[in-house]
Amino acid sequence: MDIKHYQQKIDSFVKDRNWDKFHSPKNLTMALSGEVGELSDILQWLTEEESMKENLNEKILSLVKEELADIFIYLIRIADKLDINIEEEVKNKIKLNEEKYPIHLSKNNATKYNRR
Amino acid sequence: MDIKHYQQKIDSFVKDRNWDKFHSPKNLTMALSGEVGELSDILQWLTEEESMKENLNEKILSLVKEELADIFIYLIRIADKLDINIEEEVKNKIKLNEEKYPIHLSKNNATKYNRR
Amino acid sequence: MDIKHYQQKIDSFVKDRNWDKFHSPKNLTMALSGEVGELSDILQWLTEEESMKENLNEKILSLVKEELADIFIYLIRIADKLDINIEEEVKNKIKLNEEKYPIHLSKNNATKYNRR
Amino acid sequence: MDIKHYQQKIDSFVKDRNWDKFHSPKNLTMALSGEVGELSDILQWLTEEESMKENLNEKILSLVKEELADIFIYLIRIADKLDINIEEEVKNKIKLNEEKYPIHLSKNNATKYNRR
Repeated sequence: MDIKHYQQKIDSFVKDRNWDKFHSPKNLTMALSGEVGELSDILQWLTEEESMKENLNEKILSLVKEELADIFIYLIRIADKLDINIEEEVKNKIKLNEEKYPIHLSKNNATKYNRR
Repeated sequence: MDIKHYQQKIDSFVKDRNWDKFHSPKNLTMALSGEVGELSDILQWLTEEESMKENLNEKILSLVKEELADIFIYLIRIADKLDINIEEEVKNKIKLNEEKYPIHLSKNNATKYNRR
Repeated sequence: MDIKHYQQKIDSFVKDRNWDKFHSPKNLTMALSGEVGELSDILQWLTEEESMKENLNEKILSLVKEELADIFIYLIRIADKLDINIEEEVKNKIKLNEEKYPIHLSKNNATKYNRR
Repeated sequence: MDIKHYQQKIDSFVKDRNWDKFHSPKNLTMALSGEVGELSDILQWLTEEESMKENLNEKILSLVKEELADIFIYLIRIADKLDINIEEEVKNKIKLNEEKYPIHLSKNNATKYNRR
């Protein structure tokens, strides 16, 4: 996936509407909260079981797809506005997680490392 | 960015720790809310101006980077668990947004299409 | 509970630290998102069953208590900054919910009224 | 405000619709996230200035009122399901905040005590 390509598409979309003044990282973070809130709202009354691929009905799945796209769009938009290379950061974070959660301490136990 | 590659790395990480039982889409959505909450927390007392690239100090920027990575990781993890092709959905959503927010109605005005 | 009394205590606390400039309703909403994110984080890997009163361990319960207090504090602070009478609004909302979710349509079914 | 009274009204509302099975603290936390997300969504593109009492237009204010009520309702519902005395916790938290943020260290500076 060419993230840069989508960041440019979003940037054009925003500039065409003269919305750039709204897109501070602070405001975009609020927009991201809004979208994650919608995802929560969709899944809130389902059991874990019901939220799984094999059980999710088409209607709900299609709502979830749209929310994931919205979240993704705001996320790469924030990265773009702050010149953050998201792939680089994901790589670093996965490495960091491997150090923070060594297998022998973490097996079967998802307790946050600072609450262990 | 090869999203599939990172999804597989995350999947191995999770399987190695026997955490797969925790990773229902419902639970992952709560984890995503938690991470977006941390991003909000980092930016909450900054002005919009202060949240911008040219003004954000190194310490805060580095916290933001880590949060964006966390959010990205949970986001593609949910997509993976639900067999959702995130690029496909982003493409669709950008197209949909162009229809919902035509330039002549949206110029200078970020009012949600259903509140217009 | 004398909400006004706590709003005044919070207001003094804020004024004593010269924090009032940070407390726009917008910023307080981000702070509220941060606190709700922490609550999500605490419960994210628990099953529904495990999140219930009879199963929640003391350590987690005490974390939850602190988060509920934080959420409450920011909530009544927003109401205070916007001169909103929260009790009035709660009363109205309960009445509205009774109209939106009549028993015969809603029994056993928590589908949002606009998705019914 | 007689919180117990509203908790009982909510409890009757829920029982009448046989929704109690949905109301685990975990699920209610997701519902709370959804409502806080809606509040973010309402204020996301406003400046701090615009979000203030003297500038907020009637339409937006009335949306905010409804969200604050929703948040309050889910908050006291969670407290009810976990037998948490919310007033007690608010009192404790205000006291704790006074210790964590002494005036001489906190004046003009809203940096979180653990990032100071």
